[in-house]
Amino acid sequence: MNIGFIGTGNMATNLAASFLGAGLSVKAMYSRNTLLHMDFSNEYGVEITDDLSKFEMLCDVIFITTPDSEIEKYSQLIKTNSEQTILHCSGSTVLSVIKHINSGVFYPLQTLTSQKLTNFKEVPIIVEASNSSTLEKINTIATKISNNVTTMDSEQRAKLHLAAVVTNNFVYYLNSLSREWLKQNNISDQLLKPLAIKTIENSFDGEPFTLQTGPAIRHDLNTIERHLAMLENNQEIQEIYKILSEEILKRNRIN
Amino acid sequence: MNIGFIGTGNMATNLAASFLGAGLSVKAMYSRNTLLHMDFSNEYGVEITDDLSKFEMLCDVIFITTPDSEIEKYSQLIKTNSEQTILHCSGSTVLSVIKHINSGVFYPLQTLTSQKLTNFKEVPIIVEASNSSTLEKINTIATKISNNVTTMDSEQRAKLHLAAVVTNNFVYYLNSLSREWLKQNNISDQLLKPLAIKTIENSFDGEPFTLQTGPAIRHDLNTIERHLAMLENNQEIQEIYKILSEEILKRNRIN
Repeated sequence: MNIGFIGTGNMATNLAASFLGAGLSVKAMYSRNTLLHMDFSNEYGVEITDDLSKFEMLCDVIFITTPDSEIEKYSQLIKTNSEQTILHCSGSTVLSVIKHINSGVFYPLQTLTSQKLTNFKEVPIIVEASNSSTLEKINTIATKISNNVTTMDSEQRAKLHLAAVVTNNFVYYLNSLSREWLKQNNISDQLLKPLAIKTIENSFDGEPFTLQTGPAIRHDLNTIERHLAMLENNQEIQEIYKILSEEILKRNRIN
Repeated sequence: MNIGFIGTGNMATNLAASFLGAGLSVKAMYSRNTLLHMDFSNEYGVEITDDLSKFEMLCDVIFITTPDSEIEKYSQLIKTNSEQTILHCSGSTVLSVIKHINSGVFYPLQTLTSQKLTNFKEVPIIVEASNSSTLEKINTIATKISNNVTTMDSEQRAKLHLAAVVTNNFVYYLNSLSREWLKQNNISDQLLKPLAIKTIENSFDGEPFTLQTGPAIRHDLNTIERHLAMLENNQEIQEIYKILSEEILKRNRIN
């Protein structure tokens, strides 16, 4: 099995390094800017090419790691034979955008950067395939790098991706708001970190909402009013504070 | 130094256990329901009493750990002499609600439960006092249990408490929304946990907002629209999704 990547971004570099570490063969990466990726090429011994027909010759398991909007285009651009397999790595894109007979999805549920490569051991990898032999092939690859491989159809995966946006993107945004607010007020933002970590431990303990604390769930309108007043010159965080408190207050009334 | 607590909730039990572990003397806890706390009393050898005058006799450093709205009342109810010190543990209550000559604040920036006692070693403890000898006394106590003790005035502490509400209560709420959504769709909610943990690591790395990812910061309106459509029967999460995405989109335009 010779693995190749269309794209050389965070997903491609993290998966390539992890596959190589697990003893899999990664042959090539396709990029329009080969010079940009010489370091990676030299360190890992993976050929970076801007020649798509050469790329097609070298690889039989092809991961498309482009932006979601370009997956379909590349799945049509690359010429493959029926022995080859084409995969994408997107949480929110249906399998059927890839028209090839052996198509699949390989979606690692983690936020990735090229600066610090990820160990996938505990990272859930969500897989899907157009037929059972392709599914078997994808599972073989996935279980080489992760202990947490789950098969899911495109609809379920899209729902999971939505939850990931809330738990990753929105939480990152809230913590950035907190830190910015503290910095503006000359308070060390790192003071929040132990609390933030404990919050995540509590978040996955027991039933959702059962450990909800804070002014809103206590119906402590005094504190909420004082906080909103403190935020009168910080419209963005004030608006977020207001809507989230209102929603938690509603939960308080219902439960 | 003989420490006592007004109240027997999460704050009192966590601090009492931690103080005892650090070799400090915890003499008594005041509660109107002494029977409720026999287990704690037996395990830690701390007297639980409903007799306020007895409590006053036993203790010279008194932590008021009642709900915020009752701190002032209890600070007036307990009869103390000028040798004694009275503290509260609230993030959002000013020091001056305690009228005693030796008053102080001892605010651990962490979410606490009685079920699982906290090790305070890495927990920031925010202190404040009405005079320098009291501040010294509070610092002595705080540094026995934590390596992270910071002095702050009431106004700064209130700002920090506001940030803690965002980073703890609102993040817990978002993760509960995610998990509830997955449970409704028969998807294992524990799949999100590695992502949630990594999100916190990223949240405190570099400048706020610089690692923001997701559909909104990419201006990927297609994905946002699809997510909002998926949520059409889940008004609460749909509303949260909408407002947070709108705010992140605005950041995208500004930056």
